[in-house]
Amino acid sequence: MTILESIRGPRDLKALSEADVGELADEVREFLVHAVARTGGHLGPNLGVVELSIALHRVFESPVDRILWDTGHQSYVHKLLTGRQDFSKLRGKGGLSGYPSREESEHDIIENSHASTALGWADGLAKARQVQGEKGHVVAVIGDGALTGGMAWEALNNIAAAKDRPLIIVVNDNERSYAPTIGGLANHLATLRTTDSYEKVLAWGKDVLLRTPVVGPTIYESLHGAKKGFKDAFAPQGMFEDLGLKYVGPIDGHDLRAVESALRRAKRFHGPVLVHCLTEKGRGYEPALAHEEDHFHTVGVMDPLTCEPLAPSGGPSWTSVFGDEILRIGEERDDVVAITAAMLHPVGLGKFAERFPDRVWDVGIAEQHATVSAAGLATGGLHPVVAVYATFLNRAFDQLLMDVALHRCGVTFVLDRAGVTGVDGASHNGMWDMSILQVVPGLRIAAPRDADQLRAQLREAVAVDDAPTLIRFPKESVGPAIPAVDHLGGLDVLHRSDDTPQVLLVAVGVMAPVCLQAAELLEARGVGCTVVDPRWVKPVDPALPGLAAEHRLVAVVEDNSRAAGVGAAVALALGDAEVDVPVRRFGIPEQFLAHAKRGEVLADIGLTPVEIAGRISAGLAVKDALSKDVPFEDELSKEKQE
Amino acid sequence: MTILESIRGPRDLKALSEADVGELADEVREFLVHAVARTGGHLGPNLGVVELSIALHRVFESPVDRILWDTGHQSYVHKLLTGRQDFSKLRGKGGLSGYPSREESEHDIIENSHASTALGWADGLAKARQVQGEKGHVVAVIGDGALTGGMAWEALNNIAAAKDRPLIIVVNDNERSYAPTIGGLANHLATLRTTDSYEKVLAWGKDVLLRTPVVGPTIYESLHGAKKGFKDAFAPQGMFEDLGLKYVGPIDGHDLRAVESALRRAKRFHGPVLVHCLTEKGRGYEPALAHEEDHFHTVGVMDPLTCEPLAPSGGPSWTSVFGDEILRIGEERDDVVAITAAMLHPVGLGKFAERFPDRVWDVGIAEQHATVSAAGLATGGLHPVVAVYATFLNRAFDQLLMDVALHRCGVTFVLDRAGVTGVDGASHNGMWDMSILQVVPGLRIAAPRDADQLRAQLREAVAVDDAPTLIRFPKESVGPAIPAVDHLGGLDVLHRSDDTPQVLLVAVGVMAPVCLQAAELLEARGVGCTVVDPRWVKPVDPALPGLAAEHRLVAVVEDNSRAAGVGAAVALALGDAEVDVPVRRFGIPEQFLAHAKRGEVLADIGLTPVEIAGRISAGLAVKDALSKDVPFEDELSKEKQE
Repeated sequence: MTILESIRGPRDLKALSEADVGELADEVREFLVHAVARTGGHLGPNLGVVELSIALHRVFESPVDRILWDTGHQSYVHKLLTGRQDFSKLRGKGGLSGYPSREESEHDIIENSHASTALGWADGLAKARQVQGEKGHVVAVIGDGALTGGMAWEALNNIAAAKDRPLIIVVNDNERSYAPTIGGLANHLATLRTTDSYEKVLAWGKDVLLRTPVVGPTIYESLHGAKKGFKDAFAPQGMFEDLGLKYVGPIDGHDLRAVESALRRAKRFHGPVLVHCLTEKGRGYEPALAHEEDHFHTVGVMDPLTCEPLAPSGGPSWTSVFGDEILRIGEERDDVVAITAAMLHPVGLGKFAERFPDRVWDVGIAEQHATVSAAGLATGGLHPVVAVYATFLNRAFDQLLMDVALHRCGVTFVLDRAGVTGVDGASHNGMWDMSILQVVPGLRIAAPRDADQLRAQLREAVAVDDAPTLIRFPKESVGPAIPAVDHLGGLDVLHRSDDTPQVLLVAVGVMAPVCLQAAELLEARGVGCTVVDPRWVKPVDPALPGLAAEHRLVAVVEDNSRAAGVGAAVALALGDAEVDVPVRRFGIPEQFLAHAKRGEVLADIGLTPVEIAGRISAGLAVKDALSKDVPFEDELSKEKQE
Repeated sequence: MTILESIRGPRDLKALSEADVGELADEVREFLVHAVARTGGHLGPNLGVVELSIALHRVFESPVDRILWDTGHQSYVHKLLTGRQDFSKLRGKGGLSGYPSREESEHDIIENSHASTALGWADGLAKARQVQGEKGHVVAVIGDGALTGGMAWEALNNIAAAKDRPLIIVVNDNERSYAPTIGGLANHLATLRTTDSYEKVLAWGKDVLLRTPVVGPTIYESLHGAKKGFKDAFAPQGMFEDLGLKYVGPIDGHDLRAVESALRRAKRFHGPVLVHCLTEKGRGYEPALAHEEDHFHTVGVMDPLTCEPLAPSGGPSWTSVFGDEILRIGEERDDVVAITAAMLHPVGLGKFAERFPDRVWDVGIAEQHATVSAAGLATGGLHPVVAVYATFLNRAFDQLLMDVALHRCGVTFVLDRAGVTGVDGASHNGMWDMSILQVVPGLRIAAPRDADQLRAQLREAVAVDDAPTLIRFPKESVGPAIPAVDHLGGLDVLHRSDDTPQVLLVAVGVMAPVCLQAAELLEARGVGCTVVDPRWVKPVDPALPGLAAEHRLVAVVEDNSRAAGVGAAVALALGDAEVDVPVRRFGIPEQFLAHAKRGEVLADIGLTPVEIAGRISAGLAVKDALSKDVPFEDELSKEKQE
């Protein structure tokens, strides 16, 4: 039995000798590399926090003490140390989540995978302890990258204000989030990292100042705490201490003894304290360290020795189609610039940045700033393209509405990972955008159905200079081209039955092939269908109500929340036109989706041709008061066997 | 002619003598007090920036130089100096906006009244200048209160990173936003304010250090810029300089010569610079200075001498009903705590805070933190009540979804100023909440129709401990109680026709009286109606589809965006139940609303009994293919005369 296998929970860690703990760290790294290579997952970040995670669980008493993991993808070691060592189905259906999960363990608290939240959670938990007179520590672990997010600042400002409320912030400083951390803060952290003269200078300085007649005790005391003044001068942790946080560091985050000692010091302090811990992303695994782009931030299934991918690649991704086209547009137009929120490569801006380094900005994990600065860029005469994951746009809703749309700024938003993303769980699904953005006046939203459409609609978007546009596409590989058989207003007609059409299927983006298959199933049962891709789903095309009026039923199918989405917009447009054809909405139900593969999730929520056709057919049957029309049980069972 | 009257634009300011400029400042204050007393508006903030506004327009060349006003309510002086001196209809229909307005002037840039945006805009504008090789300065004026918002931090982090991109940040530090500024930052600014020993110490320190053998040149030079080290020690502006911003200050913001001199210095600097300007809210007007709560942040119509209100008060406000009830609840339950984002009194938490100072937190202008820390508080065993203006909740959408709802936290959100607010213009209307929040799993939303309902629903809300709830109500005085005549499931039936009911009016919150009057008009034309208040508008009550099925038409009336709102949710519920009664949605059209009184706006957008009844009646008439049913022209003209 290895030492790791003997660890059933944090308690077991405390009995280990120093040598055993070192051995445990090695075992954990070995485990991580092999386990994550088998399933895919966040490898680099977890290799970086092995010693930190062990030290935290040796020094503190979880779950009485609350250990919070910001962003959460670095919690694998924490999982291993809290009784969860079966990584065989990591991020898969029924397996361990790739993030903390309250369902899995009482040691987990924050499940949200969006960055910069842990300090706010910690502030709330610490306040609750104070109000109720409870004992116990609150410890938040946050990366230097996540400190660039505004939420972290808001929390620091509040945490620092309460000198009597203990709270420990561990800054896990590996100089990067996905990408290297940017901005004034990163420069400041770099300064902190390289300063080591503080301790020896401190004693001397106090002595000299007090003995110098020109200054003497008066000025010495006029400083708001003399020690603090000297610290600022010789170890410029000034920023955090200026706010009112005690600063401990910098600490070598891979020196277990040093980390434990710093945490014990912090634990004894009766107020807010920040422990600055230096770690290395990918630590201990050569291929990760050698990987310049992101130190194996996430990996797919791979051979742990050669790092060759073992899962088949499904052809070009939506991301790469966007990346290639925006590069071409950039060649043609000097005024097109790009913004990323710490994810240059994942959103496909790598080539653009290489070609036009002065026309792309990484603003940090700061979607609000990405969006508001885009309003400024547009007002200044440029056309910014803001490329983010769909789920993270939630952070910039107010800025899109109030800064970009209210000021009629020509800004193109490109949402990658829209719809069901699957393995990263509830908070990574991009299933909200087409709902919350319905209220934004003047905004146009496109959901391309194939690569040609993405290229065409991106060009249509960057041509708009007096309003925002948005293009959203999913995570997976882009499928084959789907030709239009006709055009009607702005609608692409993808299919029209020879029979009298009864059902109008409105296929949003990648739901086009699903709708075409559903139409085929319906037609086999004698239900004629028309399938249209609205291309721009907001605003609803004026041709749609007239077309709907020629059918008995309209079905809107979208890879987005059923609540308030494109289906709602279509229903509103029909109502306004007094076209009272019933509308049925197919999309993601109003619930948080557990992690599983995208296809599994879609099947679970009924976004499949068989389910859609079955429900439409059943609905029509009810209307006809006929009982002969049964659900497509044959097809249903056939699909399930596949 | 006064000096003020002679100012047609910024150019005229530059010719003035120093004495004339002093006189102008006095005239501007005199003008502001009398003009704002006549219409109501933001008085205190504008009295505080008289000298700063004059100095900005004397030193810079607007509109080539870009002057940005964060939050925007302190732009009255700027308006006076840029050709806008007719304040007779300030914030009224057709009059000057209470915020910058691009339609009014080429000197105005940001119209959004939400705080903390100007630095992001400035970053974008400065980047656009750099990319295009344009000349000209970008100057952002931001209050110390707005610096507590996360957007400000995200922007500072980006601005500070570009040493070669000129950008001037003027911190207008009056130690408060609406309320006194809180947090670590406020403490740091206080330190900066009171430090005056820096200049004289600087020369001495360098000298001593270099001559001291224990340290000598090595350590001296090892500091990252010796001068900076000394500055940190003796004038702890450390935080801003640590980030990489040049710091100028503190400056007396009412000393015109000092302000101009500081701005000229900043103008010559070829990189990001922060000018720290100390001002006094309400400066020069004794009643404002003496007003402890908010220094006359906003005033209604009043006598400028006695400060007695001249507009009739309309009875108790929704805010006060909430404030009294949450106080009572607080007496009964120790675990109920409250959070405000820098607006303790405007959201009605004043009494609660007085009674329970340890159970209420002002988190600064930081809606994200208000919400995420509420998740922490709830997880820690308390029940937080987050009270904010409806429009500002947009900033916390992601936190409500991902931190509160995903973790099933029992948090009550109380949205004041929901719906059309009117005079504060486009960005202050609380017209988005019931749309964007439709997607939040588990969230319950109440829109009380009267004071009794508000009290009852608040109690229902704080009783929920495993999901978020939200209660929204408008700005104006609360109207008379509206009794239910019957109950059906969770629905309150407010009215039921004696005739066979044809139309089901779903009245959301304060739309109840509007719907009852619309029903009366319809019945006079022989159209029987049922009026229900759903009370909890999310989720849609299961009784609603069945009730709808008994009618020919359903009309949902809400003081919220028509797009994706309660109407959309009702339509979805009916569709899911295969109840295909047509749904008509009455609400706020998808547009930004210009400033005017609430009643004027509601009339303009057709949210009146006559318009609603007329459109329903016309729709039914079309259905019946009858032409006898004409709109209610008589009533319409009658209402217009009133």
